[in-house]
Amino acid sequence: MALADTRYSQRRRTLAARLAGQRIDMMLVTNLIHVQYLSGFSGSNAALLLSKDLNPQICTDGRYTTQVAEEVPDIRALIARPCAEALLGQIEGPRRVGVEADHVSVAQWEALTRAAGADVDLVPVRGVIEEQRLVKDPRELDALREVADLASQAFEDLLAAGELAAGRSERDVAADLEYRMRRAGAERTSFDTIVASGPNSTKPHHGAGDRVLREGDVVTLDFGAHLGGFNSDMTRTVVLGQVDELAAEIYEVVRRAQAAGVEAATVGTALADVDRATREVIEEAGYGEHYVHSTGHGVGLEVHEGPYASAAGEGELAEGMTLTIEPGIYVPGRCGVRIEDTLIITPGAPEVITRVSKDLMVL
Amino acid sequence: MALADTRYSQRRRTLAARLAGQRIDMMLVTNLIHVQYLSGFSGSNAALLLSKDLNPQICTDGRYTTQVAEEVPDIRALIARPCAEALLGQIEGPRRVGVEADHVSVAQWEALTRAAGADVDLVPVRGVIEEQRLVKDPRELDALREVADLASQAFEDLLAAGELAAGRSERDVAADLEYRMRRAGAERTSFDTIVASGPNSTKPHHGAGDRVLREGDVVTLDFGAHLGGFNSDMTRTVVLGQVDELAAEIYEVVRRAQAAGVEAATVGTALADVDRATREVIEEAGYGEHYVHSTGHGVGLEVHEGPYASAAGEGELAEGMTLTIEPGIYVPGRCGVRIEDTLIITPGAPEVITRVSKDLMVL
Repeated sequence: MALADTRYSQRRRTLAARLAGQRIDMMLVTNLIHVQYLSGFSGSNAALLLSKDLNPQICTDGRYTTQVAEEVPDIRALIARPCAEALLGQIEGPRRVGVEADHVSVAQWEALTRAAGADVDLVPVRGVIEEQRLVKDPRELDALREVADLASQAFEDLLAAGELAAGRSERDVAADLEYRMRRAGAERTSFDTIVASGPNSTKPHHGAGDRVLREGDVVTLDFGAHLGGFNSDMTRTVVLGQVDELAAEIYEVVRRAQAAGVEAATVGTALADVDRATREVIEEAGYGEHYVHSTGHGVGLEVHEGPYASAAGEGELAEGMTLTIEPGIYVPGRCGVRIEDTLIITPGAPEVITRVSKDLMVL
Repeated sequence: MALADTRYSQRRRTLAARLAGQRIDMMLVTNLIHVQYLSGFSGSNAALLLSKDLNPQICTDGRYTTQVAEEVPDIRALIARPCAEALLGQIEGPRRVGVEADHVSVAQWEALTRAAGADVDLVPVRGVIEEQRLVKDPRELDALREVADLASQAFEDLLAAGELAAGRSERDVAADLEYRMRRAGAERTSFDTIVASGPNSTKPHHGAGDRVLREGDVVTLDFGAHLGGFNSDMTRTVVLGQVDELAAEIYEVVRRAQAAGVEAATVGTALADVDRATREVIEEAGYGEHYVHSTGHGVGLEVHEGPYASAAGEGELAEGMTLTIEPGIYVPGRCGVRIEDTLIITPGAPEVITRVSKDLMVL
């Protein structure tokens, strides 16, 4: 694109306004996700220096000279290494410069301090850009719908093709699902695909290993695609062949808990209350001790980002946020079930963008 | 595995000896790669506290209760969140505790300071575990050979199957290569696959996009597999159909530069000299300004790790290190060529573990 996307300059203006209360003159952005959010640059090494007078500077290294000119036509690019230090070195006069305290290491902080001139004060700043990212704009929401749709379709195609079946390994099923997402346009997975079969289904974060699927297995698939900077995240649990009684029971409980979480996810609801909504169903069914994680998280440029729906979750839902609802029950030595959707919070009922059926699928 | 792998306790003993000179009593390990290196734990949330008396503690959260017991049978596991803070809270009596300064953010440092008792002093420590990881043991080298072999075979199979051909998109070629690596056992790619075709070959870090390959294209593929914690990394550049004169010329220069780098990579050679070996060939051929990156890096638990062969590289090569040799020439508006192998440094000539031919392949 030859013309600058106004989205980025708009975000920089919004950020400048948010930073007005922080008693800083400039903000040094080093988290690459944030560099991309505020400039459009997608390379693997960069930093961005924003000032309140909105005259930004970006720095990257020689590998990206062509790419930065294409992706960021509206910001002057400096080609240097290390980037953050080079930008600090350009600052003239006394300035208070905000630094992303969550994304700069203790060692980097020391290096930045050395690179900054004597009259530059570095100020740790936390969460300001993350907070700005909580509410997505319509184009971001469209991108999230698109990538969630791509992953949903890939999963349905996997099932239709009979690729999730006894006799195949977890790894091969994961490979097929990933290949389907990739061929449909995904640039990568948004995280390592989980195919947790049989006893592995009791491990919420099992990967996908050598185990060969068998008749009677409970199989939990947790997967996501990454496209154009955005991620998807969903989980479905299926059963191969005969369903045993415990599996059927916990499936039903998790499904009710998940529905309760979706129902609770409305504008103005406290995040802790969304967590409580799923947890109460599982506790009342007597499986509370086997629900070993929180209810959900936001999905966007990162596959795990705010808001966080947990017992200790702070804040409430607002229109344009995203949230996963992903309760699970993991009975040690037996089996586990998790069901996860990603939602967009709307003025009415939430929009479920991971549109695969949640009826118990027996394959 | 029911019995603890003695590799991990051996590494902890080595680290304890290395830390003896650091004036600390304990070391808090928060980098997950390092947690895995020192304990075998592969989950996504953990911290490890090592003391000089070798009585380690590991902490993870409830999702990994089963997994930590299986993977780390020889270390007492604490189940808590946040992990590093929980471990610090267990310390009794006055202690100086080393913290990984490169892997703890400014904000985390503040949280750790709050979690530590009044008589616990946190001390920033840099590079000690990274230095220990520079020289690989025989089992690590075998794992690196295995994953490099898997990726090499996948690439050869891709070519043999005619999947790298005019009419296909960069993304589809990348998807096919990744699928072949995955089906061969890879758990994921070690980084986003690069398929840079035609004009995109001039961008060293292009990804793999919508562009459809055409006859006459130069196509650079840079890819790696991840298996059992270890990564591979290699690059080949091929030509589709007719080779133009410039492409043939720069291919030959890059190939000679790459061979010079491999030849220079012997025990005791300064890393800056390895970089100089590739750079001199390209400069003498008149393309110095188009060689916009350094010569190479180590490959192990991370796909980019020490040692670093660059003009500013410090230190020298030792037996058991790994190193990529990956010179490139990128002529803006025309085409680019990069050739990359991963080597194991031995007492004699380096062992090239990415065993695909470097003859110019015209497909």
